[in-house]
Amino acid sequence: MNGAESLVRTLVASGVDVCFTNPGTSEMHFVAALDRVDGMRCVLGLFEGVVTGMADGYARMADKPASTLLHLGPGLGNGLANLHNAKKAFTPVVNIVGEHATYHIEHDAPLTADIEGIARPVSGWVKTSKSAKDVAADGAAAVAASMGPPGQIATLILPANTAWDESDGPALPVAPAPLPGPDPQAIREAAAALTSGAETLIHMSGRALRADTLEIAGRIAAKTGCRLSCQTSNGRWQRGAGRVAIERIQYPVDIALKQLASVKHIVLLGAKVPVAFFAYPNKPSVLIPDGCAVHRLAEMGDDHHAVLSALCDELDAWNAEPELQESKRPELATGALTPEAVACALGNLMPENAIVADESVTAGRGFMPYTVGAAPHDWLALTGGSIGLGLPYATGAAIACPDRKVICTEGDGSGMYTLQALWTQAREGCDVVNVIFANRSYAILRHELTNVGAQNPGRKAIDMLTLDRPELDWVALGKGMGVPGVRVDSAETFNDALARAIAEPGPHLIEAWMA
Amino acid sequence: MNGAESLVRTLVASGVDVCFTNPGTSEMHFVAALDRVDGMRCVLGLFEGVVTGMADGYARMADKPASTLLHLGPGLGNGLANLHNAKKAFTPVVNIVGEHATYHIEHDAPLTADIEGIARPVSGWVKTSKSAKDVAADGAAAVAASMGPPGQIATLILPANTAWDESDGPALPVAPAPLPGPDPQAIREAAAALTSGAETLIHMSGRALRADTLEIAGRIAAKTGCRLSCQTSNGRWQRGAGRVAIERIQYPVDIALKQLASVKHIVLLGAKVPVAFFAYPNKPSVLIPDGCAVHRLAEMGDDHHAVLSALCDELDAWNAEPELQESKRPELATGALTPEAVACALGNLMPENAIVADESVTAGRGFMPYTVGAAPHDWLALTGGSIGLGLPYATGAAIACPDRKVICTEGDGSGMYTLQALWTQAREGCDVVNVIFANRSYAILRHELTNVGAQNPGRKAIDMLTLDRPELDWVALGKGMGVPGVRVDSAETFNDALARAIAEPGPHLIEAWMA
Repeated sequence: MNGAESLVRTLVASGVDVCFTNPGTSEMHFVAALDRVDGMRCVLGLFEGVVTGMADGYARMADKPASTLLHLGPGLGNGLANLHNAKKAFTPVVNIVGEHATYHIEHDAPLTADIEGIARPVSGWVKTSKSAKDVAADGAAAVAASMGPPGQIATLILPANTAWDESDGPALPVAPAPLPGPDPQAIREAAAALTSGAETLIHMSGRALRADTLEIAGRIAAKTGCRLSCQTSNGRWQRGAGRVAIERIQYPVDIALKQLASVKHIVLLGAKVPVAFFAYPNKPSVLIPDGCAVHRLAEMGDDHHAVLSALCDELDAWNAEPELQESKRPELATGALTPEAVACALGNLMPENAIVADESVTAGRGFMPYTVGAAPHDWLALTGGSIGLGLPYATGAAIACPDRKVICTEGDGSGMYTLQALWTQAREGCDVVNVIFANRSYAILRHELTNVGAQNPGRKAIDMLTLDRPELDWVALGKGMGVPGVRVDSAETFNDALARAIAEPGPHLIEAWMA
Repeated sequence: MNGAESLVRTLVASGVDVCFTNPGTSEMHFVAALDRVDGMRCVLGLFEGVVTGMADGYARMADKPASTLLHLGPGLGNGLANLHNAKKAFTPVVNIVGEHATYHIEHDAPLTADIEGIARPVSGWVKTSKSAKDVAADGAAAVAASMGPPGQIATLILPANTAWDESDGPALPVAPAPLPGPDPQAIREAAAALTSGAETLIHMSGRALRADTLEIAGRIAAKTGCRLSCQTSNGRWQRGAGRVAIERIQYPVDIALKQLASVKHIVLLGAKVPVAFFAYPNKPSVLIPDGCAVHRLAEMGDDHHAVLSALCDELDAWNAEPELQESKRPELATGALTPEAVACALGNLMPENAIVADESVTAGRGFMPYTVGAAPHDWLALTGGSIGLGLPYATGAAIACPDRKVICTEGDGSGMYTLQALWTQAREGCDVVNVIFANRSYAILRHELTNVGAQNPGRKAIDMLTLDRPELDWVALGKGMGVPGVRVDSAETFNDALARAIAEPGPHLIEAWMA
């Protein structure tokens, strides 16, 4: 058994049974091994940014890592931006990156690059296998490393001769490190803040946003009167009817400052102190008010369910009834196709247990109130701010959860970064409704140009922010990759198209031509 | 004048008058400054891999750098693969990468990343500006650094407050370092090899491949009987009727070994010792035979024209008549649409002074003999082996040379990496004929799977190398981005489509459905 096969067998034994891939010559032994090993599903992406984004979406929903298979430094480079997003979501990902044979590297062939150097800015764990006999153990270590806690990117670099030379066979799985539990001192400190009588906010992210953990937070809020919030962007947030609804701290600095203005104590559960997404002249970076006390209840990698349970014990809050969100579906809109009209359709039509893979950077900013009482669903968000995640992570989520409907809400500018994901959706029959908001601009930047003080932008500046010359035709783009689509330009036609796409399995594209 | 404006003015004063861009919030002051500064042409790409690939193609043809404008670490990451290609072509590129305001970085907002770390593997020069007063001088230094010699990637990172704070105005241009001239000892050593009577090869790349320098090489060959060759991939190679034709060392290891088997002396002029693109089990990395003497006549960054002139002096070869390639256009083919049929059409129909931006990884391997006697042209090649350069660098070449026809020969697999370039071609009215070889597979990998020893690949492996489920529809993809296209599946219809596309200005797409 060669090194490549020992690695594939080790990955499968470690529970990694999906490989998102865009291989090249140096990965051919890994590819060849796939035919000899059962239990590994391979999913091809036509660009590495799609591959890494799929791995992110998959792991957010599967709660375990997928593997990627990438072609040397440039292949990893193409996947870097969505690995950045995965890193910021604390998503476990195991990258397998091919490399030249160890003895070939010194010759500086065209594809030779500093792969470890490219990997390090996004990876928590990086290793280059030294020989075929090390590959299996390195693979098992990579899987364990990816689980953290918290989850992180583990990048294993595989020189070609470590893949083709003879190995000692697969390695045993390595148990991931356990999640740290509650810290009694932090529990007491949080409880003191919550019972102080001053306005207290429990600010959350990570596993705290699963429905069962949120229910405990709801009990604590019912008992103490505290507020509950989450970060602007979170890897996965369970919400909808019957769950404990919480506030999201909003992206615009001025609105976030107002949300937080009256808070005296902020209790952090897997979240960070709220900061502005960008700095702006004469606006603060840190969004909590002066004098607000910060209490670090748990880090991202801690066992949030256990921590909140301990806090619930401390506060004797188990008998407090959490306020559960009532079912509340907005009426379908009529007339112009506005962001509100889309939000109403989402809130009304979203099926039970849907997954929303959101990257509607501008159009979707107001979606939350319209979907809070929709059927229960998981909401995935752009955690690292690097656009081009939407279509790929929707695809990966669909691979992880083939029995659930995925709705991808995607900007036209963002969608163009990684549109190749549509092809993988078609190939794999992914059950994804891709809603593309065609506003024919990097709309967010029109606001930002004003925010930074450029009040009357001229033609040259505006040209850099608009997508209208020529107009994109997303229905044609979808057709080019085997995904049927339709362009709609009114609330009524959007409602119909969304209902139809939700009713019919397989990938669909709706180009929402915004008013 | 703020820092951003001081930088734009400095770039223009330094001769950098094209900016390929995909900006975000942190770059908005740079964008706003564009309206206030004349002389900078801005070209938007809808993905950063397109942006950096355009900058590569532009500089190869303009012999000076363009600027890019990229959005923080992830934006740079998306551009990394084509920067790798540019690095391997020794193309000068000036990256301007936005960064958070200096005081905002510590807060680890979603887009915060180690930008210098991401830049270093591809950049010869990296700097983060410290204040608005430094930005202009840093910009002038970046332009000079990009020129090398040899050309390299210079990455200037611009924290947002260095863009919006008040500057001291633009900086004066910095003169690039001069190209080193001939080394008398190296000239004598090369001359001795060339007059030794043993088979000698002058192996070239870089500026040596310009027509006027090749003519000197031709005189030396006429005088001494030496062979002339170039690397498998070169940044820019001037060839065609009336020029000195030279061999290209081929990609397949076995063929390259045969090409080089009888060589006793290899004289390197801007080229490296020929090495295999990849290592293969039981095949050598270095392709020259044992005992072949290596003579380093000039490095990539030296003045190749002056070096060859000095060698011509030393050999008293100025009166030797170089053998110039006669005009020789192949007949147009009929019948099946094979790579040879396409090659015949290219050789027959290519107009005077065309630029071929080649990335026909598999289909184009045999193009050289069919185009050697075509109208004089420039041939650009994939220097770093990272696919996804073709459509972008064709676009950049067209921006640099609006009066020349660009023919992009592109694989379907490679084209999918950076297909967004088509939109920029449509927006800018680029005169590019995009020939997409639709062989519905990563054809090169089918060979490579066999090369690495996997003789009977199964369905799972083959699935990772094929693009046929679903089939891509490149005509639809082009339509989606405003580029008219046609699918052809015979030599006759290809010939007609190519002739029409060459005759008509503006971008065209021909999907060559290969037999």
